[in-house]
Amino acid sequence: MRKESSKKRSILMLSIHGDPATKIGSEEQGGQPIYIKDICRLLSRHYNIDVFTRLKSRSEEEQVKLFPNVNVVRIKAGPVEFVPKEKIYLYLNEFFMNTVRWIEKNNKKYSLVHSHYWYSGSVALKLKDHFEIPMVHNFHSLGRVKYEVLNENKPDFADMRLLEEEMILKRANAIIASTPQEVKNILDLYDVTGENIELIRTGVDKRLFRPIAEEIAIKETGLNFKNIVLFVGRITKAKGLRILVKAIARVKNKFNEEMKLVVIGGDVSGVMHSEEESREKKRLRRLIKKLDLEEDVIFLGPVERERLPYYYSIADVCVVPSLYESFGLVAVEAMSCGTPVIASKVGGLTHTVRDGYSGLHFLPGRADHLAKAILKLITDAEKMDEIGINARLRAARQFGLEKTVKQIKDLYDLLLF
Amino acid sequence: MRKESSKKRSILMLSIHGDPATKIGSEEQGGQPIYIKDICRLLSRHYNIDVFTRLKSRSEEEQVKLFPNVNVVRIKAGPVEFVPKEKIYLYLNEFFMNTVRWIEKNNKKYSLVHSHYWYSGSVALKLKDHFEIPMVHNFHSLGRVKYEVLNENKPDFADMRLLEEEMILKRANAIIASTPQEVKNILDLYDVTGENIELIRTGVDKRLFRPIAEEIAIKETGLNFKNIVLFVGRITKAKGLRILVKAIARVKNKFNEEMKLVVIGGDVSGVMHSEEESREKKRLRRLIKKLDLEEDVIFLGPVERERLPYYYSIADVCVVPSLYESFGLVAVEAMSCGTPVIASKVGGLTHTVRDGYSGLHFLPGRADHLAKAILKLITDAEKMDEIGINARLRAARQFGLEKTVKQIKDLYDLLLF
Repeated sequence: MRKESSKKRSILMLSIHGDPATKIGSEEQGGQPIYIKDICRLLSRHYNIDVFTRLKSRSEEEQVKLFPNVNVVRIKAGPVEFVPKEKIYLYLNEFFMNTVRWIEKNNKKYSLVHSHYWYSGSVALKLKDHFEIPMVHNFHSLGRVKYEVLNENKPDFADMRLLEEEMILKRANAIIASTPQEVKNILDLYDVTGENIELIRTGVDKRLFRPIAEEIAIKETGLNFKNIVLFVGRITKAKGLRILVKAIARVKNKFNEEMKLVVIGGDVSGVMHSEEESREKKRLRRLIKKLDLEEDVIFLGPVERERLPYYYSIADVCVVPSLYESFGLVAVEAMSCGTPVIASKVGGLTHTVRDGYSGLHFLPGRADHLAKAILKLITDAEKMDEIGINARLRAARQFGLEKTVKQIKDLYDLLLF
Repeated sequence: MRKESSKKRSILMLSIHGDPATKIGSEEQGGQPIYIKDICRLLSRHYNIDVFTRLKSRSEEEQVKLFPNVNVVRIKAGPVEFVPKEKIYLYLNEFFMNTVRWIEKNNKKYSLVHSHYWYSGSVALKLKDHFEIPMVHNFHSLGRVKYEVLNENKPDFADMRLLEEEMILKRANAIIASTPQEVKNILDLYDVTGENIELIRTGVDKRLFRPIAEEIAIKETGLNFKNIVLFVGRITKAKGLRILVKAIARVKNKFNEEMKLVVIGGDVSGVMHSEEESREKKRLRRLIKKLDLEEDVIFLGPVERERLPYYYSIADVCVVPSLYESFGLVAVEAMSCGTPVIASKVGGLTHTVRDGYSGLHFLPGRADHLAKAILKLITDAEKMDEIGINARLRAARQFGLEKTVKQIKDLYDLLLF
């Protein structure tokens, strides 16, 4: 018997505008409900969790069991219908009041409130005070980044949002930042010391990045070729795409089957390095022309993260030819889809990819070495399968969502005394 | 029998210019060897650790046992004598070479190298490549912050340092940042994405922040008064010192014993908020004069962190009257010294201090409430003792070095596959 099963603590998870029990993709849901669903699934080994969200339709049930120990509770706030995200702020007070009522009516006791996005954070501050429980918050998106850095149009509630975010930053017991960049943004753009910030990265979710059956991947990607070499990354010199193109030219000379290099063009957010990217793209076009590879390289541009698994799965090998790389997320995503990775032996890639076990290494900058590695893999189906399985195992164990959830659990346990 | 005891992994810890086996304070050692000694002590439950440092004297032993499973290995590099920190860069290649020789001669196998400060980071990069092991790095200090932000004089090796730091940031498998500010500095000042940054705070060390016997604390602080109320923090409005002064005036009216308010003036680094601080100090002086408390308030100015435990220990109560506070490190430090804390019920303080258990709360901004809490504590010795013990327990369990080391262990385990 598991020691803790008899007296699990209960967590009040708050996701007012993103219902993790709704079919993902059915509305403007984004990554937030996916993240919540993922962490709840794994956290439910240790806690009971109720996720409070807004009731959007008369046909929705008030309570849904998402997983064992995880329920979604839908609270009336504003009209019982779909409300655009920009209007939900009007109903936050009602949401708070009806949440407290529901909790009291059902005699629930929560030990901690964990909120997502500023809407929920704003309500969580009140729940924290009302029930005297600690509060953990994920921003998912920061108002000041939206309005000041990205210069987006300010909606009606912009000023309120910024004030609320400042309060959340000051009063939450812990703020979970998902990237170092988010830590930096908070310190740059808000008047806070950040003493309560915890850096907990979103792990690669092996349920999103998973091997997908060939016929489905062909249908979704439209890529139907015998051999596919995949590159995913920003088009900059440091990412080494030119080296890969040169290697492909060499492989072509010794390999008679059909083979395409598919290039997914990097930074989906599209903010950074755009000038450098367009210069580098020109250089690449010239090189491809010179090497007579115009038929063999397919530039797809950016692809949404949620659709990447189709591309990783259809690829026979994913190449990460970076001249340097501190971690190498692309390698891990590919590995998680069971795709063998050939990576330059540099920086974090020396660790994420284990030569001969979960992928192959080549010397950075050396197109001849890379060509050899590609040939070695695409001509040995058995080795490729073996490496693919190892890759998937390694990604799941070392870089998975499990790590994220372990860090969240450690944080909860620290706050629950 | 502990499962892992039979086959512990070995860690190569690298601290070229700070020998954790030398008496702390004997040279220009700073916090680095203290940190290393602390984490090694706790990490040695899980790993064997050899700390490599530079041999500084013929009378030093080549190997010293620091703790069970933790050895200090002294490597010859440059003259066997004290060398100022600014000159040690001259001997890094020799250090690398002799370290490799020592390791090979002694048939040692290390699974991971963990380096401290750029000197060691620079050598660790070579050890990482030579032995093909992952690398973790703590900067402790960043060149660009020193030269560009703080505008310090550049030593001879400044350019080399910046280049090496950039390489370390790019090639280490993980960079441990100790504060959110360090994360921000790295992203602001270096051309890196920070994918490998882990935020692992230095926990409050209960061996530094511990109760100190009264006679020693009196001798060290020179404070010999019957009742001492302590304030530690920056002198800004948000820290609420004015509220505390008003509360002291009220307490004085109802309390006939000798009592002093001791103010330790905050930011030892002294960079931030100096203008605001001097304005606030003027306001305070006026208030103290008006309330006729000039004999009762002692301003000590900043005190070195290493000496704070004497002040916490001599205090009967430590007051944290902040108007807001995201975490409340002062409260935790005081608690760790067994000193009851009276804190405003706001932000992180609502969590760090548990009302009636490990301290008392009062409503933020309310001098009358605070006065009542102070009176309640200083007139009830028994309650004060009980709360002091609880405070110490809570600090050790929840905010201790143990958390830091647990995070470092998790990081090691992630890298050791």
